[in-house]
Amino acid sequence: MKELPLGKVYQLIEPGPVVMLTTAHRGRADIMTMSWHMMVDFDPPLIACVVSEADYSCAALRTTGECVIAIPGIGLAPKVVKVGNTSGRDIDKFAAFGLTPLPAEQVKAPLVKECFANIECRVTDTRLVNSYNLFILEGVKAWIDPKQRSPKTIHHHGYGTFVVDGETIKLKSKMP
Amino acid sequence: MKELPLGKVYQLIEPGPVVMLTTAHRGRADIMTMSWHMMVDFDPPLIACVVSEADYSCAALRTTGECVIAIPGIGLAPKVVKVGNTSGRDIDKFAAFGLTPLPAEQVKAPLVKECFANIECRVTDTRLVNSYNLFILEGVKAWIDPKQRSPKTIHHHGYGTFVVDGETIKLKSKMP
Repeated sequence: MKELPLGKVYQLIEPGPVVMLTTAHRGRADIMTMSWHMMVDFDPPLIACVVSEADYSCAALRTTGECVIAIPGIGLAPKVVKVGNTSGRDIDKFAAFGLTPLPAEQVKAPLVKECFANIECRVTDTRLVNSYNLFILEGVKAWIDPKQRSPKTIHHHGYGTFVVDGETIKLKSKMP
Repeated sequence: MKELPLGKVYQLIEPGPVVMLTTAHRGRADIMTMSWHMMVDFDPPLIACVVSEADYSCAALRTTGECVIAIPGIGLAPKVVKVGNTSGRDIDKFAAFGLTPLPAEQVKAPLVKECFANIECRVTDTRLVNSYNLFILEGVKAWIDPKQRSPKTIHHHGYGTFVVDGETIKLKSKMP
């Protein structure tokens, strides 16, 4: 894993890929699948996300205030769905689905070795947690896997239907 | 335009397409390009989005509490970028770029005829507006254009680089 400048994190989150979120609580790591996230600011990167109380990870995120957002390429799609279909209440999903937790640098939640990008995050604003389970995270360290070149991500359209990244186009934009 | 059940709006927003946001203020409609948005709840659909104070639309959104999220297909990509590169301070973007405002039903902001989906929204929570320009919107009416079948959307990766929707895959998911 190679360090990614924090100012480039938005280029990974803004396109709306399905991601995974890891937490660590009481010596145990967990991982969930998530599609409800967006950028809030560029650098340091602020990311909003919704982690439902129904998700086992919610308690760990509330208690520890730390997580990792890991971005899977298309090759991991079957595992991403299995992670989404199961609960950390019942199983150790890393072991069950052959995902490898790696130590992060700034947070206790693990990186996911198989993902092409990992963003270490701390919760910085909880004002909307009680109303909507909406957390504001600050990315404090980011990593990319240089061996995974131009990875294609997946985008969820509901009920297991995913659209895979297609062609890349370049248009003359003044927007960052 | 055909009505879309509000409970299906998340299937359009969750995949992270570049969208446009319209407002109407003092008898004048405006439109901006936006990629910082996410779902917050299913039905009624709640959508979070960031509209910067630097955006001309921000004042209209704050004052009127109303907007429309319009989702463009790939065919509109050049116009979407032009909308993003210009400001409603200087020009009438609908006229300048050949986009057609249509009256909405529940809000004063216009639908965009050329977009395959339009979601009429009201601001329902402003607690994070002062800190992050983060608005919580409630979708109150949604429309799709039945003539635009399986439209491909675009996803922004920064500086005018967009990834276009590619193939659709179906995996056995328990997630809605």
